[in-house]
Amino acid sequence: MGDSLSLVLFSGTDDKLNAAAVLVAGAAAMGRKVHVFLQYWALDAFRADRVLKDHGVAPEAGPEGAAAFQRHGGLHWGEILRQAKDIGEVEIQACSLSMDLLHLEESDLDPLVDGVQGVTSFYLDAGEGRIVFI
Amino acid sequence: MGDSLSLVLFSGTDDKLNAAAVLVAGAAAMGRKVHVFLQYWALDAFRADRVLKDHGVAPEAGPEGAAAFQRHGGLHWGEILRQAKDIGEVEIQACSLSMDLLHLEESDLDPLVDGVQGVTSFYLDAGEGRIVFI
Amino acid sequence: MGDSLSLVLFSGTDDKLNAAAVLVAGAAAMGRKVHVFLQYWALDAFRADRVLKDHGVAPEAGPEGAAAFQRHGGLHWGEILRQAKDIGEVEIQACSLSMDLLHLEESDLDPLVDGVQGVTSFYLDAGEGRIVFI
Repeated sequence: MGDSLSLVLFSGTDDKLNAAAVLVAGAAAMGRKVHVFLQYWALDAFRADRVLKDHGVAPEAGPEGAAAFQRHGGLHWGEILRQAKDIGEVEIQACSLSMDLLHLEESDLDPLVDGVQGVTSFYLDAGEGRIVFI
Repeated sequence: MGDSLSLVLFSGTDDKLNAAAVLVAGAAAMGRKVHVFLQYWALDAFRADRVLKDHGVAPEAGPEGAAAFQRHGGLHWGEILRQAKDIGEVEIQACSLSMDLLHLEESDLDPLVDGVQGVTSFYLDAGEGRIVFI
Repeated sequence: MGDSLSLVLFSGTDDKLNAAAVLVAGAAAMGRKVHVFLQYWALDAFRADRVLKDHGVAPEAGPEGAAAFQRHGGLHWGEILRQAKDIGEVEIQACSLSMDLLHLEESDLDPLVDGVQGVTSFYLDAGEGRIVFI
């Protein structure tokens, strides 16, 4: 199957983005190539003017879970991804359809994002590797 | 791993179903066999009397995101799936356990759905291919 | 790709945990090795003092869906997983980062959970198999 890992990020809450960033960083640290494809609310969270803002957590977290998440004091998912890009081969692409939906230009996005692509290019990049939807 | 793609659809909001439909259509356009397995709220969205109704978007979209989604004017996910079935090999099956849970008969479902199967049949159809949960 | 299946469980609502348990049990019944990795709200749901409590359903279920889920009277996901462990090779590991986030010790968890591991160990266990995020 090859060792590459492709993640389609759909959700834009900080808890899911944090979980995704940890999966990306772990794979990168193990020398695996990682492709990230940003759709919808995940893409929105990568806007340059929003990346460090509070994106909330899943409603199911409840007040107790939300407080635990706020308190944990770990690295921000953006920083985890930045480090993953430093140590490994991690490419982050925005979905072109979602760019249109949210009326975004590439210049609106945080420099973590490497470019914009369509779903066919995403599949070609993913190759024989795994695909995970978050 | 083979080139087939299997999607377990659990969520029934229009944003996730739209994302799923785009992934299905892209794979079908590339000549890949696609299996879709409908569970819970996704299955509910494929009821003949509901498929074209408004299924809302994920709560995290917020009012701004929900408005952007309403405005975008792209094809409905049902229509994207219909076209994907025309151009490629796309099979859509309802999960038998979810049919029982929601008290549905096969005649309650939109003709997009090809049949009802259990999880073991789903795994057999998925074969060596990828499985994505949405 | 091998026949093993690895599930990263993130969500802790009873509908998603039930869907996950059915996928685990089906794979186990077919003789496949299954790895489950518990993060965030899914991990919280496996606390010994909470596993049998009501964890709610996804907001999109709505009152009608929530009532259907309550009524269906099937086995609890914890019991489905217990049976899956009896008939097949199913290992359930808690994510060490999520344990820290939620201030949990291994003794706080239901005996369904076999241990605590980091993301790198999870990838090593997953090997060449499929990874599904729920």
